[in-house]
Amino acid sequence: MNHMVKSYRLDRTFSALSDPTRREILQRLASGPATISELALPAGMSLPGLMKHVRILEDAPTEKSGRTRQCRLGPEQLDDARQWIQTYRRWERRLDRLEGYLEKTRGERA
Amino acid sequence: MNHMVKSYRLDRTFSALSDPTRREILQRLASGPATISELALPAGMSLPGLMKHVRILEDAPTEKSGRTRQCRLGPEQLDDARQWIQTYRRWERRLDRLEGYLEKTRGERA
Repeated sequence: MNHMVKSYRLDRTFSALSDPTRREILQRLASGPATISELALPAGMSLPGLMKHVRILEDAPTEKSGRTRQCRLGPEQLDDARQWIQTYRRWERRLDRLEGYLEKTRGERA
Repeated sequence: MNHMVKSYRLDRTFSALSDPTRREILQRLASGPATISELALPAGMSLPGLMKHVRILEDAPTEKSGRTRQCRLGPEQLDDARQWIQTYRRWERRLDRLEGYLEKTRGERA
């Protein structure tokens, strides 16, 4: 896939996941479709406030279907996001090992 | 860990990852510390624009050290984010299996 498209999709996926209300909505919708009134409103949230989050999720590269809300983050998007984190994590571990090695040889030279 | 604290940390981690320039900066910093002038400016980006992203990263729950920029998203934050995605993915798979089962039994009943 085109690098720019993939990068843009990562932006939207991570952005959709960066809010606790949106993560809750996704969790609720992952267990089946729901109407807006069936989505339990978080304490103190207005209906327009909830709608704003749902619209952000619908703008994300989600799978939509039917009359009831069913926007799910699809497997491809999630796998891309998870893969980005895993690759980054691998670099970090490599860097930590390198730091440990330099630390050790520094001790031996002292 | 406190649920609220963990949720807040997830917000900041996903938010930090939701921009391609910030992901590039993190990738660069994962391979070792750098000064602002060493961070290659993405094409067409001004220094104040770059600084804005660095400040957002520094506000994220990153590990900071020394005089040079070394803000890395630590292993705990990344593991939390990855775990959230994996758990969500598992629900999705379960839902897909359930849908497949219902589809099949519907066909048998028809």
